[in-house]
Amino acid sequence: MRLGLKEACGVIGIHDKDGNVAENIFYGLMALQHRGQESAGIALTTGNGSILLRKNMGLVSEALSLTELSMLKSRFGIGHVRYSTVGSLSLTDAQPFNLDSTALAYNGTIVNYVELKERLRRSGVYFTSTSDAELLLNILLREVREEGDYFDALSELSKYVEGAYSAVCLTGDEKILIFRDPLGFKPLCFGETERSFMGASESVAIDMLGGKLVSDVKPGEAILVSDSGVERKCFAKSKRKSYCMFEFVYFSRPDSIIEGRSVYDVRLKLGMNLAKTYGCGDADVIVPVPDTSRPAAEGMARVTGLPVAEGLIKNRYIYRTFIMPKQNLRENAVKVKLNPLRSVLKDKKIILIDDSIVRGTTIKNIVQMVRRAGAKEVHVRITCPPIVSPCFYGIDIATHGELIASKKSVEEICKSIGADSLGYQTIEKLVDAIGIEKENLCLACLTGEYPTPKAQKLADMMKVKPYHVKGRYVEFCF
Amino acid sequence: MRLGLKEACGVIGIHDKDGNVAENIFYGLMALQHRGQESAGIALTTGNGSILLRKNMGLVSEALSLTELSMLKSRFGIGHVRYSTVGSLSLTDAQPFNLDSTALAYNGTIVNYVELKERLRRSGVYFTSTSDAELLLNILLREVREEGDYFDALSELSKYVEGAYSAVCLTGDEKILIFRDPLGFKPLCFGETERSFMGASESVAIDMLGGKLVSDVKPGEAILVSDSGVERKCFAKSKRKSYCMFEFVYFSRPDSIIEGRSVYDVRLKLGMNLAKTYGCGDADVIVPVPDTSRPAAEGMARVTGLPVAEGLIKNRYIYRTFIMPKQNLRENAVKVKLNPLRSVLKDKKIILIDDSIVRGTTIKNIVQMVRRAGAKEVHVRITCPPIVSPCFYGIDIATHGELIASKKSVEEICKSIGADSLGYQTIEKLVDAIGIEKENLCLACLTGEYPTPKAQKLADMMKVKPYHVKGRYVEFCF
Amino acid sequence: MRLGLKEACGVIGIHDKDGNVAENIFYGLMALQHRGQESAGIALTTGNGSILLRKNMGLVSEALSLTELSMLKSRFGIGHVRYSTVGSLSLTDAQPFNLDSTALAYNGTIVNYVELKERLRRSGVYFTSTSDAELLLNILLREVREEGDYFDALSELSKYVEGAYSAVCLTGDEKILIFRDPLGFKPLCFGETERSFMGASESVAIDMLGGKLVSDVKPGEAILVSDSGVERKCFAKSKRKSYCMFEFVYFSRPDSIIEGRSVYDVRLKLGMNLAKTYGCGDADVIVPVPDTSRPAAEGMARVTGLPVAEGLIKNRYIYRTFIMPKQNLRENAVKVKLNPLRSVLKDKKIILIDDSIVRGTTIKNIVQMVRRAGAKEVHVRITCPPIVSPCFYGIDIATHGELIASKKSVEEICKSIGADSLGYQTIEKLVDAIGIEKENLCLACLTGEYPTPKAQKLADMMKVKPYHVKGRYVEFCF
Amino acid sequence: MRLGLKEACGVIGIHDKDGNVAENIFYGLMALQHRGQESAGIALTTGNGSILLRKNMGLVSEALSLTELSMLKSRFGIGHVRYSTVGSLSLTDAQPFNLDSTALAYNGTIVNYVELKERLRRSGVYFTSTSDAELLLNILLREVREEGDYFDALSELSKYVEGAYSAVCLTGDEKILIFRDPLGFKPLCFGETERSFMGASESVAIDMLGGKLVSDVKPGEAILVSDSGVERKCFAKSKRKSYCMFEFVYFSRPDSIIEGRSVYDVRLKLGMNLAKTYGCGDADVIVPVPDTSRPAAEGMARVTGLPVAEGLIKNRYIYRTFIMPKQNLRENAVKVKLNPLRSVLKDKKIILIDDSIVRGTTIKNIVQMVRRAGAKEVHVRITCPPIVSPCFYGIDIATHGELIASKKSVEEICKSIGADSLGYQTIEKLVDAIGIEKENLCLACLTGEYPTPKAQKLADMMKVKPYHVKGRYVEFCF
Repeated sequence: MRLGLKEACGVIGIHDKDGNVAENIFYGLMALQHRGQESAGIALTTGNGSILLRKNMGLVSEALSLTELSMLKSRFGIGHVRYSTVGSLSLTDAQPFNLDSTALAYNGTIVNYVELKERLRRSGVYFTSTSDAELLLNILLREVREEGDYFDALSELSKYVEGAYSAVCLTGDEKILIFRDPLGFKPLCFGETERSFMGASESVAIDMLGGKLVSDVKPGEAILVSDSGVERKCFAKSKRKSYCMFEFVYFSRPDSIIEGRSVYDVRLKLGMNLAKTYGCGDADVIVPVPDTSRPAAEGMARVTGLPVAEGLIKNRYIYRTFIMPKQNLRENAVKVKLNPLRSVLKDKKIILIDDSIVRGTTIKNIVQMVRRAGAKEVHVRITCPPIVSPCFYGIDIATHGELIASKKSVEEICKSIGADSLGYQTIEKLVDAIGIEKENLCLACLTGEYPTPKAQKLADMMKVKPYHVKGRYVEFCF
Repeated sequence: MRLGLKEACGVIGIHDKDGNVAENIFYGLMALQHRGQESAGIALTTGNGSILLRKNMGLVSEALSLTELSMLKSRFGIGHVRYSTVGSLSLTDAQPFNLDSTALAYNGTIVNYVELKERLRRSGVYFTSTSDAELLLNILLREVREEGDYFDALSELSKYVEGAYSAVCLTGDEKILIFRDPLGFKPLCFGETERSFMGASESVAIDMLGGKLVSDVKPGEAILVSDSGVERKCFAKSKRKSYCMFEFVYFSRPDSIIEGRSVYDVRLKLGMNLAKTYGCGDADVIVPVPDTSRPAAEGMARVTGLPVAEGLIKNRYIYRTFIMPKQNLRENAVKVKLNPLRSVLKDKKIILIDDSIVRGTTIKNIVQMVRRAGAKEVHVRITCPPIVSPCFYGIDIATHGELIASKKSVEEICKSIGADSLGYQTIEKLVDAIGIEKENLCLACLTGEYPTPKAQKLADMMKVKPYHVKGRYVEFCF
Repeated sequence: MRLGLKEACGVIGIHDKDGNVAENIFYGLMALQHRGQESAGIALTTGNGSILLRKNMGLVSEALSLTELSMLKSRFGIGHVRYSTVGSLSLTDAQPFNLDSTALAYNGTIVNYVELKERLRRSGVYFTSTSDAELLLNILLREVREEGDYFDALSELSKYVEGAYSAVCLTGDEKILIFRDPLGFKPLCFGETERSFMGASESVAIDMLGGKLVSDVKPGEAILVSDSGVERKCFAKSKRKSYCMFEFVYFSRPDSIIEGRSVYDVRLKLGMNLAKTYGCGDADVIVPVPDTSRPAAEGMARVTGLPVAEGLIKNRYIYRTFIMPKQNLRENAVKVKLNPLRSVLKDKKIILIDDSIVRGTTIKNIVQMVRRAGAKEVHVRITCPPIVSPCFYGIDIATHGELIASKKSVEEICKSIGADSLGYQTIEKLVDAIGIEKENLCLACLTGEYPTPKAQKLADMMKVKPYHVKGRYVEFCF
Repeated sequence: MRLGLKEACGVIGIHDKDGNVAENIFYGLMALQHRGQESAGIALTTGNGSILLRKNMGLVSEALSLTELSMLKSRFGIGHVRYSTVGSLSLTDAQPFNLDSTALAYNGTIVNYVELKERLRRSGVYFTSTSDAELLLNILLREVREEGDYFDALSELSKYVEGAYSAVCLTGDEKILIFRDPLGFKPLCFGETERSFMGASESVAIDMLGGKLVSDVKPGEAILVSDSGVERKCFAKSKRKSYCMFEFVYFSRPDSIIEGRSVYDVRLKLGMNLAKTYGCGDADVIVPVPDTSRPAAEGMARVTGLPVAEGLIKNRYIYRTFIMPKQNLRENAVKVKLNPLRSVLKDKKIILIDDSIVRGTTIKNIVQMVRRAGAKEVHVRITCPPIVSPCFYGIDIATHGELIASKKSVEEICKSIGADSLGYQTIEKLVDAIGIEKENLCLACLTGEYPTPKAQKLADMMKVKPYHVKGRYVEFCF
């Protein structure tokens, strides 16, 4: 369970011959809601060259009016859900971002954001936000003008924009461009129904709309959808891929299919592999921290034969980072979200399974909660290996100093969180569970080895001089 | 999983010596949110004899302002969450209801509502709503005036008010009266912290506030909390109890303790008992319909050794009866709420476990969904025995005609929902799992035998002449 | 200009054969908006015996959704706008009030409210609000049940309900009852279009709907409108009338016709009469305090030949008692609402004309403002005679002690507000301007002589022992 | 009276040493609310180099939270109110506009907007809106970078940006730049209190804040306010000025002082001059169309000795272009806003005085309304001369073809609007009333002679080929 972790965004783009794009994007975004609860937005073509834009703070059902959308007829549109930042009430960074009758919705992070922004600034292009989407859209428009073609533009752009970008772009003249960076960090897939085509962050959005998953959008691939049909092209080649392992471990919905793998199956196997690594000693019961770790608990049960029990109950109605006005309560966010089930925990030796440890505070509170409910022993198992390095590709895992695993040994962490034992997944077993060759995964946050050069340089510098300036960790460098 | 079932309400009443009642009620209601998502309300003493009332449509976090509440100092207060009715946008029936500087929040149903209301009407008392709370509060005030004492008033009242009432009552002169009908249909418990006392529908609200569960409020018991202390008295005796079995099966949160039983443990045992009754044949996997049936699936796994898998993923962000403007989509509410996990279901023989069947439509859609995802066989197991009779004590299970089990045999139902086999819990195994003697449970909806005479008469009449007038099934009788 | 004076309410009731009642009530309420800006409400028949109710805080355009209303088809309905109370955010007292499939919207005050309420309370009728409407509706329903006929019921009711009541009542079985107390304190008129009938507080609502003013509802008259037609009857006779003089002076819109008199013409004549009484000395210019006093300024100009100038400009966008969070600004409400026009006021001898003085604070601030803008002399003229006694018929003019004219002579008031001279209207000239015989006007607040016995008794008691308890000045007596 | 005319915007910028900028901007915007009711916005320095932005649809009191603002401490800030466009619900064009930690609020129009935008576009600068503010801010930032100094930057900018711009600009490093184009089309003034400096569209905002009007910002002048003090410089010289005459006639509040003239006095004189030109024949009464024409009616009365009467009453509560869902009512917006006072109009010969005629529809409806109320004769007098040419400097007076006076003679217009006589102000008498030499006023909409070359060219082209593309009339040219 993550409290306050900034999650990935979710994007969707649809061309529907029958004009029901607005409503379908609404439903598609509801399927992607887990990827971002801060704001939601939609951009639609109007048929006369311009674009209608709606974006607002809140969940999809709060930010957008389904009643309004269901009355709009549009054949091309894109949508976006954005991750949650405590206390931010600003719309400035909400997406889709629009410029020049073009709108962009985007998931990822541009590593050399500051450098590229400064370069544009020097040429007289100024920015209204700190959003990567604004920068990427500026660059894209610039390249399209120079190259005269979307694929060539992306090809050019990919030469100097380093980072993760899984994006959908809508043009006023009724085209949708779906594209993914050459290393393919963040997921993006392509689907269809009889009368429509769609790109989306995860296949669950396609499921929701009754569509069929055609394929992932390949790393370095772009898909142009218009009335003339669907054009797919590779705009950039790369020897390796860098699929974000954390999408399998934590971000994506278990019912999504990413790179041909069922996320559920991966998580099941993560649990099985943990069991194979550590056994189960004389534990009585496996308790998952809901909701992400439930499949892993199942997997562990299959190997060990131990029962699974819902020893921690999650309040279904506190989904966003619920803002509590008084400090004493804010510190107790874990208590508000989780309730221990005494009858399950009391006098038991517990294997507590969670997806990851970042700072160590949340798991510490949970272990405490489980103990107070009477558990005799608490053995923590983490489906993800230790996180030791920051992420520059779309997950807000900040500086080395804040990552408990970059400073402490497993034994020290175990002690600090108050567990009886602590077992992390090994990198090998993680790779095995995902089922993709190691060299095609991004494991930078686990290994400190980054798949792109500027990120590596950045990480190396941060190790020496840890900075985190104005929300952009990269602000100080280049 | 229930779609559109009208659930029970949730109530809470708090006396806090430090004046933090408003904020605590807010958090307590969040813990009870699963009992009602239509409206939320709060009533507080102001210290000068009057009562401050706030109630609004929506979830607790939408209907009440935590910012406002955290600024209010009050030492006595009550709160209420109300169940969901599609399309109703009316505040008229929202609770707490107030009359004469007294406020009432209430869970249950008065069986002889129409009769009692008409009797009062004839004496010149008119009603602004169709809420049982308004009627009950009127009667209570009347008896208090006559008897001069809360306990005597309740004793008198209990002689002619038939039905379920688990209630908290707040008076302008700073008292809280917590009381429960003599048969104790709906749950109500009493807890404390160092500086406060509280009554609540379920113990999870006490957990949320860091309190200790002292005991259930006993059937026929009232607790008067004031600055003079806590006074507990039995106002009415009854040979038997009638604890609603559906609270264990479906309504309550799994982490609640009701009548000393862990709801989670009951559900675990429900699953174990189903396994004992039906075995598991050559099934491959157990799939619960989330979230209620998960513990039962665990229980079944413990007996059969079969693996559990999350073959149906619930969209966490559609919690209320989400209103969809277009009919074609409204029919597909199941599709919006659940997504099948193909990798789990494909080519498998599934044991699908759900909590209950009312009309049979929802389970039919789910079976279909599971089949389309590739399941080879679908064996449905229901933790609750067949529901054959309406409920007059707080659950909107309408007329006999609408209850599929009152018209069809198990074989016919199995065929009609498209399952390969269908196994209901037996009443004996249900009773065994709950662990309370059969005669102290209300099993009326399973047996057609009602613990109170007017309800029995009503049910018998409805069998002959099924009516459902203006939202009050009892309107036509007496 | 009044700051924070609680104004009268506005009511409307419509029967429209074409079913456009909801929308028409919305527009009618907009025409009556000046009579109340705190809350607005509407009640409509549904055609099946029940009543649909909507009420909310705010202006008509904020509290009610015209979009929703314009989609509702209803043939009978009533509406209400309620006056403004600073800081009150409660819906409890909003109207229409409903009981027993009947709804009431009401303007006025019941003098013996506490006595009647207590009498009902003793018989077991409890109240959810402190609204006169709830009491009146209870009494009306009770009498209708006893008498079996609306007119007889009102006849009976009028024998013991003392006070002002201009009301519209809607029944679920599709009738509208429009009635006015025997002395006719507050205005109420009756109009029609080709396909509809309507009762309303002021004729401007009838104008807005393109209707024709048929007549005032006579004091003691009731009009029953149903599909069978229009039935008008006198339910109570009275030797005298008691038309509220303040409706002519301040409350009503200038374009309304009340008791056959144009309110504008009355105000014009009020100004003319002031000029006749006091002349204009060597003043340079007449400056009205906007908006009410503008016609009086015109009238004064016609007699004296002096020019009128808009020396005080009102901010059109601060119409409600705008809530200012910081105290220093709250005290300056006059400054936020009015801006002096230096070029008009500088070095001039000003006749400043306003409608009335209650506590004397507002006019004092205005005089100061005018002086600071450079006026050489400020001669205040008030179109209403000195207010020396409280009102018990619908205007919140509180205790004697708060009324500056009950404690001080005109000379003392003049000094206290900082004016060079002060001239009040005489009672004779007021009566002359209104054009109704003195004995048919309620002048109680000017003379201390009340047209009803309990009000007289109450005023006499308050003189000795001024009380103002819990918002009901009458709470302590009887 | 104008229905649906797009009015000018209002701006304000404040430096307050005590940090109360946010609250003061709120109050200042309330004083400027008449200049724009569509949206309101505010930008504040945070003290750490960045800017906090809030903007929303609606009136100031709806769009901004005074509660929130009064808790924010900031020493530099700017605010904006934007004019009303029916049906537009888009925030895209709301101001302040921000780029690169700089925010701009702006009143005016850039004549060569399309040309300049296209030029920037060609250099890779793309736009998110069609707002002149975005273009102007881009150009300003570009020039500041090149010139290194605000005054030089404005000097450069003024050489090629043609049009009206009265603006306030806020920088993250705590400066406010207040500037006005060299011809000074739209008003802008500068004021101070003991602890603060402020620039605002009209002096009433300074009045509201208890400040002193120091002077107008001169055409071609810029004022830089920072902690170092106030620096005033002329950045561009011009032989003539072009003060918009319509600010005096219609836009500004009567209590504003513009270029040293009281707007009220100008309007008074406009009425006097009309009276001198046309006399009053045997008319009985002067009736102003509220609210703008009231001072002119006063002026006319002073000359003719005729009485003024409020023959048309304006509904104070319909201030925005109130959106009516049904067409038949929308056509009747005049009826909803105005009510004729029969007792004033009946059997009278009326001089009806209004500020201007654009398309002729509104005045036609008013004349009709006055006649139906019984007027014997209706003589229309217009304080503004005939409008024959479009405005390219900030008022949405569209194409020649839509201007009734560009197509018809006064006699024809008189007939078309149904008046008995029609008298426009002459240009000479308008100039005389304003009291500024003709060559320093912008009279382009009256004469067709534009003070800037591109506007002249544009007007000449539009005469031949009237276009109005996508909301920017200038889109087709250059």
